Amino acid sequence: MSGAAQARAFSPGSVGNVGVGFDLLGHTIAGIGDIATVRRIDAPTVRIAAIRGCVRDLPREPERNTAGAALVALRQALALPFGFELELDKGIPLGSGMGGSAASCVAALVAANALLDTPLDVAALYPLALAGESVASGGRTGDNVGPMLAGGLVLATARGLLPIAVPAAWHAAVVHPHAVLETLQARRVLQGAYALPEFVAQSANLAQVLLGCERGDAALVRAGLDDVLVEPRRAPLIPGFAAVKQAALAAGALGASISGAGPSVFAWCEDAATAAAAGTAMQAAFRSAGLGSDLHLTPIAGPAARRLD
Amino acid sequence: MSGAAQARAFSPGSVGNVGVGFDLLGHTIAGIGDIATVRRIDAPTVRIAAIRGCVRDLPREPERNTAGAALVALRQALALPFGFELELDKGIPLGSGMGGSAASCVAALVAANALLDTPLDVAALYPLALAGESVASGGRTGDNVGPMLAGGLVLATARGLLPIAVPAAWHAAVVHPHAVLETLQARRVLQGAYALPEFVAQSANLAQVLLGCERGDAALVRAGLDDVLVEPRRAPLIPGFAAVKQAALAAGALGASISGAGPSVFAWCEDAATAAAAGTAMQAAFRSAGLGSDLHLTPIAGPAARRLD
Repeated sequence: MSGAAQARAFSPGSVGNVGVGFDLLGHTIAGIGDIATVRRIDAPTVRIAAIRGCVRDLPREPERNTAGAALVALRQALALPFGFELELDKGIPLGSGMGGSAASCVAALVAANALLDTPLDVAALYPLALAGESVASGGRTGDNVGPMLAGGLVLATARGLLPIAVPAAWHAAVVHPHAVLETLQARRVLQGAYALPEFVAQSANLAQVLLGCERGDAALVRAGLDDVLVEPRRAPLIPGFAAVKQAALAAGALGASISGAGPSVFAWCEDAATAAAAGTAMQAAFRSAGLGSDLHLTPIAGPAARRLD
Repeated sequence: MSGAAQARAFSPGSVGNVGVGFDLLGHTIAGIGDIATVRRIDAPTVRIAAIRGCVRDLPREPERNTAGAALVALRQALALPFGFELELDKGIPLGSGMGGSAASCVAALVAANALLDTPLDVAALYPLALAGESVASGGRTGDNVGPMLAGGLVLATARGLLPIAVPAAWHAAVVHPHAVLETLQARRVLQGAYALPEFVAQSANLAQVLLGCERGDAALVRAGLDDVLVEPRRAPLIPGFAAVKQAALAAGALGASISGAGPSVFAWCEDAATAAAAGTAMQAAFRSAGLGSDLHLTPIAGPAARRLD
């Protein structure tokens, strides 16, 4: 074993879906995230000792908490003879659409992994993170935990993680309005039937975004970064959304849409200065809709989760 | 003007859809195609003087023929004071799923374009080809005409053509069983509602195929080249399909699915020898289902349509 009896890890937040990659595509958000402190304990169990920070009323039963469930999955997968005690310091607001439940899950896994005799690699941690995340989302979707584990922009499929190259200069503005949108409510509006042409249009957009990122072709991203499938169904849940999006585009953004299940809205831009201008304009538009907000600026190729010790 | 009063052009066939890119992705098939001979005429009209070759009972009214309709669209777009007389030599069997109607359309456009005082570029020809192709398919889908115009593997959106890089060594086997499947019948089975998770799975597959091609990563293409959306609905229309696909995979193909609306079946392979072996195995499987067939081997980065004079 590593000798350490305790490890701390930080996971950044993330923009899930990125509009055109529903349940598949995501990137991390620098500067905001959750911290997990994990201790090895003799008892063959997982227990949550504390939840601090900006969210406190989360379930303490390990199986009902994304971080706890991930450590339960880790213990089971490796048939570990020991257990874990977990403390969470939440930095991502609940129901913000910035991957808060995923960040706790990944931070806990990265910390616990450092306490293993033979730590796992990212590919092996991914299915455990999916197991943890499913407690919150109701499904095994990797568009938040995947980027947190691998860093940057990631296509997260059922099979594994596929990092997508993105120019280092490209930045995102992520604006979090002070309103809570429950993931389950945001999922409910997506129920029902879809028509094949909707999917063809969205596929074309996703393809252009992915190829535009890999090639560093901003015009291709601008052409493709337009969610015609999910955004029309979820936008009515976010006060002022149309004006916020329009403000981002008017400020020069390549595109803008809903971060994760919302209500946060992201805008992709070719450089940090444009992202800052877009973010300020988006905050003003939310203010006109009666909502205060926080602004996060991040490279799209944002950081991965990391050990803090 | 160019001085010539007549021009001939050849357009290759194509594999539309490529399984995971329904109505969007296609590549040309070397060695099989249609030839158009176009003459400038004083009369301000389009007329079809002859249809020869392996298909003869096509509509002669220009507006009901993909090649004629494309030339009508060309005349209208440029307000040309002269007309065109067209002869078609069909090399692609009707209802084969190898883009026969699109090839006539593109060959006619490329030939007529050579007769213009100021020929158009591929981007300008594309909407005219879409107009012609819509006569046959009922919609403006570019996954056949797009690759024919630009060559190779192309993502053809409503906006334009996006050529996708593919390693030169990669080849496809395209096996055409001697059975006719009407495009409209093949479209009918796609009607009805789709569920969001089907789209998510198919999007992940399309993304892996596109990124695998661009990166020359065969493992990524192998993981993604699996049509979970359209193939399950159309496969029952093609006798022996499951055995034909399995034969291709057993011979080492990266993946196999239905070419266009079928009944032709394609298999993608890492080299020409594997494609030849896959093609032979696929033909044997069709034979076991009581169907003779033709085999076409082509680089995936196949040729574009070209002038013959």
